[in-house]
Formats: sequence, C-alpha cells, structure tokens
Amino acid sequence: RGIRVGYTPDVLTDATAELSVALLLSACRRLPEAAEQVKSGGWTTWKPLWMCGYGLSDSTVGIIGLGRIGQAVARRLKPFGVRKFLYTGSGPKPEIAAEFGAEFVPLTRLAEESDFVVVTCALTPATQGMCNKDFFGRMKKTSVFVNTSRGAVVNQEDLYDALAHGQIAAAGLDVTTPEPLPTDHPLLSLKNCVILPHIGSATYATRSTMAVLAANNLLAGLRGEPMPHELKL
Amino acid sequence: RGIRVGYTPDVLTDATAELSVALLLSACRRLPEAAEQVKSGGWTTWKPLWMCGYGLSDSTVGIIGLGRIGQAVARRLKPFGVRKFLYTGSGPKPEIAAEFGAEFVPLTRLAEESDFVVVTCALTPATQGMCNKDFFGRMKKTSVFVNTSRGAVVNQEDLYDALAHGQIAAAGLDVTTPEPLPTDHPLLSLKNCVILPHIGSATYATRSTMAVLAANNLLAGLRGEPMPHELKL
Repeated sequence: RGIRVGYTPDVLTDATAELSVALLLSACRRLPEAAEQVKSGGWTTWKPLWMCGYGLSDSTVGIIGLGRIGQAVARRLKPFGVRKFLYTGSGPKPEIAAEFGAEFVPLTRLAEESDFVVVTCALTPATQGMCNKDFFGRMKKTSVFVNTSRGAVVNQEDLYDALAHGQIAAAGLDVTTPEPLPTDHPLLSLKNCVILPHIGSATYATRSTMAVLAANNLLAGLRGEPMPHELKL
Repeated sequence: RGIRVGYTPDVLTDATAELSVALLLSACRRLPEAAEQVKSGGWTTWKPLWMCGYGLSDSTVGIIGLGRIGQAVARRLKPFGVRKFLYTGSGPKPEIAAEFGAEFVPLTRLAEESDFVVVTCALTPATQGMCNKDFFGRMKKTSVFVNTSRGAVVNQEDLYDALAHGQIAAAGLDVTTPEPLPTDHPLLSLKNCVILPHIGSATYATRSTMAVLAANNLLAGLRGEPMPHELKL
C-alpha cells in the first residue's frame, strides 16, 4: 500500500493502428526491398513481375484481438477493398464486429483463410507463443503476417522457418523478444521480414498527449487528489 | 495510319492508390530509418521522442489532381482521422469532392495548409516542374510530400534543398527523373526521403489483369475486330 500508479489509456490507439497499417503495406508491397533496389542499382528496365507484391484488394484480413486497436486497424483497412474480415479473441463481439461485417472464427480457420493476419491482442498466458509452427503452417504461401502487440505472442523460431522456407510470403513486426532485438538475430537476415523498433505510439502528437497525461497524474498524486487515470489493482 | 494501339485503362487505380498510402505512411512514420536502427544497433532503451513521426490524425491532406487515383487515395486516408482534404486541378469537381468534403483551392494555399501533399495528377505542360522551390518554400516544416504520378512534376533539385534544409519533414517518391535514378543521386543520400522503383502497379493481381487485357487487345487487333480498349488519337 502507499504507491499510487498512474497510466495513459487509449491515447495510443490511433498511432498504433496507423503504424500497423504502415507495417502491413510495407511488408505486402515490399517497400524496404524495393527501396534497396533503387540504391543498389537493381532498378533497371520494366519487367512484368519484378518487385510485385500482394495487395489488399479483394482480400481476407484476419485480426487476432478485435479490441480498440484491432477495430481501428479494421476501420483503416476497409476502404482498401478488403472483401472479408475474420477475428478471434476471448469470444464474439457482435455489436463491434457488425461495423466491419467481421466473422468470429477459431484461430485455425483464421490462419487458413486469411491473406493478411494482424495481431493486436494483449499478451496473456492464453496468447503467449500462440503464433507458432502449427499456426504458420496453416497460413497461405501468399499471406502476410503483422504483429504490433507484444513479441512473446509469436514463436520467433517458427516464424523464421515459415519465412525462410516460403510457407508465408512476408512479415512485419513492431515488437520482438527480446527488445531491442540482437543485431545478429536470424530474422534480420530475411528480405521478406520488416522489423521496427517498437514505434507504434511514436508520433509527436501522441507522445505529447502521453506526457501531459502522465504529468497531470503525477501532480494530482502529489497533491493527494484523485488522479485523472489511476491504475486500480 | 495502320498501327492500332491498345491500352489497359483503370486496372491500376487500386494498386497505385494503395502504394501511395504505403509510401506516405512509410515517410511520415519514418519506417526505413527505424528499420535501419534495428539493424545497426541504434535501438536501445525507450526515449520519449526517438523515431517520432507525424501521424494523420487531425491532419490536412492536399491532393494534387483529384482524378481516379487521387480519389482512391482520399478514400483510403479518410479513416485515419484526416480533418480536412484540399485539392487542386484544372477546376473544381463538386460532385466528386463531396465524398471527402474536399475543398478546391489554389496550389499556393494547398502548399501552405497541408500536412501531407500527395501528387496524383497527369504530367502535362501545366504540371511539369510544378512542385518547385516556391512550392516547397510554402509548405510547413512538419509536412510530408508524396509523388506517385510522374517524376517530372517535381523539380528534384528544389526538393533536395527543401529536405536537406528542413523546409519540409520528409518525402516519398515512387517516380523520378530519370528512371532508373542514378545510384549516386543526392536524393538517395537523405534519411528523410523514401524512393521506390516505380512499383505503383506492382501487385501480382494487377499485373495479371494488365496482361490479360493486353493479350485480348492484341488478339482482337490481329483478327481485325474492335479492340476491348483501343487508343483513339
């Protein structure tokens, strides 16, 4: 007793959803690889299938965890021509899912039918290591995997194998185990894996809002007043 | 007379709009720079403003050329929380602009008020070199410039100066002058400039549709029949 803890809820939903879409598009349209070709001189004459990727038009998108961030991702992806949304989680959320016509399915079916899988769930004992060999083995060879939640939801050895052996087309990770990821990690050697340094909430506007909220929590706490956002355990 | 020319209209609208958004997000959220930090060991402990970028929430987006691709870009950006769309072109298009609440403005005002500028116009004598020193000088220091139309719409020397001197925050280019861009071009030395090798239409689905259309045009032409899409001059 005695130590009060403040936090900054909700403020990073938009920035993290935006980064999730940025990472998905970067992976599926092969942006880092294409940019590298410009620098290395690999860009020469037009060739029909050079640097082709997989677009969102007419695709199926599977969202693992249709919470605030998962919903914000679906809302942003919808106008790209997504045909169908699937989602998993602790149970169906019909009112929320109606906005996207999203269907609640078992994890195995989500893996098998999705062209894009986006992980936006919380890390819990139930989700730890959930994206593993079995999961990636069910995914399509042309599918793209994106994780912006927590690194430990993914078995990174299994993801490496899936990417290296063409079981899936590409991946985008904003979170890893551990963080920072060692610079000699095998995932960093793959052309079809985009890894970011956990920048989901890294916009000037979001970080400024977070700072103000944290300061207001602190000031209220020091004054012995109710904190704007206090963690109750 | 005698040589009939077929073309493949409309089929690349979705893929190019998708790539435009990918490039915008990649530039404004600094994806290539952030990914490089992971590889180089620059990713260490959490720092409040490290790798921060400018998000779309509550932003003003200026679209140069609200044609098919410009509209498709606006439709995709809207759910990211864009507050206001501006556009320029040969004249106002009130019916089309109504979908986005977009306002027709002079080019100077678009430059001054936009947080993001996306160029999706055709290359004509009127648009050649249009994004020049005067244009970039009017843009905000925090703004991001994206071109997925034709390289010659931009004066690349002026863009380099604007990026190198912090007149604008970042740029994303899928088109350059010339193409391919020489690997020693000054723009390639900038951290805040993402350059792609003209991959706007580079999805497997789009290139396949283009190939089938081209083949059907050719077969009809060889048979002396009406071509599905024939260029009439």
